[in-house]
Amino acid sequence: MKKPITAFSGLLTAGLLMAAVSQAQVVEDFKPSAANQSGKEYPMVNSEGRVRAQIHAPEAQRVQLDIGAVKYDMLKDENGVWTGESAPQDEGFHYYQLNIDGASVPDPGSLYFYGAGRWGSGVEVPAHDQDIYALKNVPHGVVSEQIYYAETTGDLRRCFVYTPFSYNKHPEKRYPVLYLQHGGGENETGWSNQGHVNLIMDNLLAEGKAQPFIIVMDNGTWDFSGPRKEGAPWPPEGWTDGFMQRLLEDIIPMIDSNYRTLADAGHRAMAGLSMGAMQTRVITLSHSEVFSQVGMFSGGSIREDDLAANPDFRDNNKLYFVGYGSRELESGRYNMGGDPENNVARLKELGLNTYFYVSPDTDHEWQTWRRSFYRFAQLVFQP
Amino acid sequence: MKKPITAFSGLLTAGLLMAAVSQAQVVEDFKPSAANQSGKEYPMVNSEGRVRAQIHAPEAQRVQLDIGAVKYDMLKDENGVWTGESAPQDEGFHYYQLNIDGASVPDPGSLYFYGAGRWGSGVEVPAHDQDIYALKNVPHGVVSEQIYYAETTGDLRRCFVYTPFSYNKHPEKRYPVLYLQHGGGENETGWSNQGHVNLIMDNLLAEGKAQPFIIVMDNGTWDFSGPRKEGAPWPPEGWTDGFMQRLLEDIIPMIDSNYRTLADAGHRAMAGLSMGAMQTRVITLSHSEVFSQVGMFSGGSIREDDLAANPDFRDNNKLYFVGYGSRELESGRYNMGGDPENNVARLKELGLNTYFYVSPDTDHEWQTWRRSFYRFAQLVFQP
Repeated sequence: MKKPITAFSGLLTAGLLMAAVSQAQVVEDFKPSAANQSGKEYPMVNSEGRVRAQIHAPEAQRVQLDIGAVKYDMLKDENGVWTGESAPQDEGFHYYQLNIDGASVPDPGSLYFYGAGRWGSGVEVPAHDQDIYALKNVPHGVVSEQIYYAETTGDLRRCFVYTPFSYNKHPEKRYPVLYLQHGGGENETGWSNQGHVNLIMDNLLAEGKAQPFIIVMDNGTWDFSGPRKEGAPWPPEGWTDGFMQRLLEDIIPMIDSNYRTLADAGHRAMAGLSMGAMQTRVITLSHSEVFSQVGMFSGGSIREDDLAANPDFRDNNKLYFVGYGSRELESGRYNMGGDPENNVARLKELGLNTYFYVSPDTDHEWQTWRRSFYRFAQLVFQP
Repeated sequence: MKKPITAFSGLLTAGLLMAAVSQAQVVEDFKPSAANQSGKEYPMVNSEGRVRAQIHAPEAQRVQLDIGAVKYDMLKDENGVWTGESAPQDEGFHYYQLNIDGASVPDPGSLYFYGAGRWGSGVEVPAHDQDIYALKNVPHGVVSEQIYYAETTGDLRRCFVYTPFSYNKHPEKRYPVLYLQHGGGENETGWSNQGHVNLIMDNLLAEGKAQPFIIVMDNGTWDFSGPRKEGAPWPPEGWTDGFMQRLLEDIIPMIDSNYRTLADAGHRAMAGLSMGAMQTRVITLSHSEVFSQVGMFSGGSIREDDLAANPDFRDNNKLYFVGYGSRELESGRYNMGGDPENNVARLKELGLNTYFYVSPDTDHEWQTWRRSFYRFAQLVFQP
C-alpha cells in the first residue's frame, strides 16, 4: 500500500501548489458564516465576501462549491477533506449547494432555507448595515405557524404570522396588517428565515422608527415553468388569480378572525419581492378597496396607464414604495415594463405618495429585500 | 467512447441481477414519504417499512443509504441514478442520511429535522395509528418562535410555544403550561417538527379528549460527550443544574409574563423524552413547588428512595406518567435505575396517581414519544 499512497500524495502536493498560486489573492481572514448550524466551522466567509466550503469526502473524484450560478472546484487534502472558495459575493444572504461527484446536495455545515424550489444551503456575507437585522436584546415579537383550511383550494395550508411584542402585552389593542410575499421558487418561510423580517421589525420598534403591525407571510407560488406561447403576453393574463382569490376569500378573513386586526383597507398593506411584487401589483391595482398601501421590491412598477385603468387605486392609495438593488437596476433585467425610477417619478407627479429606494451594490437577492423592507416598514401605516 | 460504455453497462447488468436476487422479497408498493419536500418522489416507503432512497450522482463510486445505524449499498443505473433500500423500519419517524463517496450528506428529497446534533434528513414510515398526528380540518393552535434574553446564561435564545386555538379566541382566559423537553442531540424544534405535538393537541382538543394548555419547548442541551470518570456516577451530579436554573429563573418567568398562564404549581407540568425525561426527573423531584404533574418518556423512572428523599414531591404530585417503547423496554437499555414498570407500580402503591404506558413494537424513537405524549396529554391538567 505504501507506494500508491506516496504517488497519490505527490499528486496532491502538485495540486496544492497550483491552488496556492491561483489563490494568492485570497485574504485569509475567513470566519464561520452566521447561517451555519450551531458549532459548525464551515462554510466560512472572508472580508472580500468569498465563501469557503469544506467537506469530508475521502472517496470522491470531484467536489464543487455551487454558488451564484458558478461552480468552483474544491481541492482534496491527504485526509480526504475537500476545501475551496468562491469569487467575492455581494453582501447578505446567498443560496448555494455542494456538488459531490455529480450529486447536488446541501452542505451539512449550513442551516437550510427554501429557495429555487427546494430546501438547501444558505450562507451569510457580513454586510456593512447588518445591524438592521441583528439579533438584539430588545423586546421581541413572535413568528407563529398558522394552519388553516382554504375553501378556494380545498386543502389545509399554513402561513407565518409576525405579531409585535406589544400584541401579547395589550390584549385590547388592534393592529394593521401587512401581507408580505416571497419570490418565485421560494415559500412562506423566506421572509422570516432568510429575510429576518421579525428582527428588522423588533429593532425598528425598539427604536420607535415604525408603527407596530402584524405581518402575514403565505405561499403564493405560481409555476413559471409551463410552456410559453410565442408572442403571447408573459406572464399570461390571470396568472395570479388563484393566489388572489385565496388571499381575498380565505387568508384575509382567517387572519381578521383569528387576530386582533384593524380590518379595513386603510390599515391593510401588501408588499412582495420579485414574483411577490408582480402579484402585489396585480392584486392591489384591482383591489384598492382591500389594500391602501403598497410595496414592490425588485418586481416591476406601476405605470401611468395602470393608474388610468384603475382610477380607484389612484384615489385610494396612501403609500406606494418601490425598491431595487443597484446591480439589477443597471442590468434592467427585472424592470418589467419601463424604467422603474421614471415610472415612480411619474406617479409622484400625478399626486401619489411614492418612494423609490435603491440598495447599493446588491442584485436580485435578499440583501436588497431586507433593505427595502427596512425602509418600507418605516413608511407604512404612519398616521 | 462506445466500447467503455458497453463494458460499463455489462458490469451494471451483473450488479442489477445480483440486486434482483437479494431483493426478491421486497414488496413493490413504495410511496413517497410524508416527510418529503413538496413535489419530491424520493425517499419512498413500502408496506414493510422499507425505505428506498434515490439520488443522481453520475460520477460517484459508492452511494449508501444510512438509516438505523446501518449503511445499505445503493445501485447505479445507466443514467447515473443511484437507488437502494433498507431493511424494514419501525412505524414512525426516522433520521437518516446519504453517504456519497464517503461524504455524509442530507438527502435533497427529504425535509430536514434536528437530531444527532445536526439538521438532517427524516423519513416517515406510515403507522397504524398515524391518525393521532394527522393534519385535519379542525381548529388549529399555533406554534410560535419566542426569542428571549436569558439572564442566567447572558445570551439571546429562543423557544417554541404552542397555544391552543381557543387562546386567541378568548383573550380573557388563562391556561396551564406544560414544559416539554427533547432528547440528547435534539433541540427545541423536535417536538413540533418531528413530534407533531401541535397536531396531536389540535386533534385531541377537537375530540374533547384533552384540556387546553400551553406547551413550551426550549433547548435543554447538555453535552454528554465529555470525559467520564471511572467509577463516578453518570451522568455526574449536577449535570442538569444549568438548564434547571435557566428554566426556573428565565424561561418560566418569561412565559408567565408574555402569555396568559395560570402561574402556579397546580397548573404547571414538565415532561420530556430520553435526556429530557432525565431532566424532568431531576427538576420535578427537587421542585414540586413549581411542577405538580410529570411525564417521563424513555428516560428512566422515579424510585421509592427518590420519594423518601423528596417528601414534598410525594405530597404535592398530582400526576406521574411513564412511557416506553416495547423494544427498548425489552432491551432494558434505557431503564436507568431499576425496572421502570416495577418502579411505577411501587409509586402507585405508595399513593401516587401513576400511569405506565408501553408503545407496541417501537424502540427509542419518535413514534414512542408521539404515542406517549398522546396519552399523557389526555391525563394532564384534568380537573
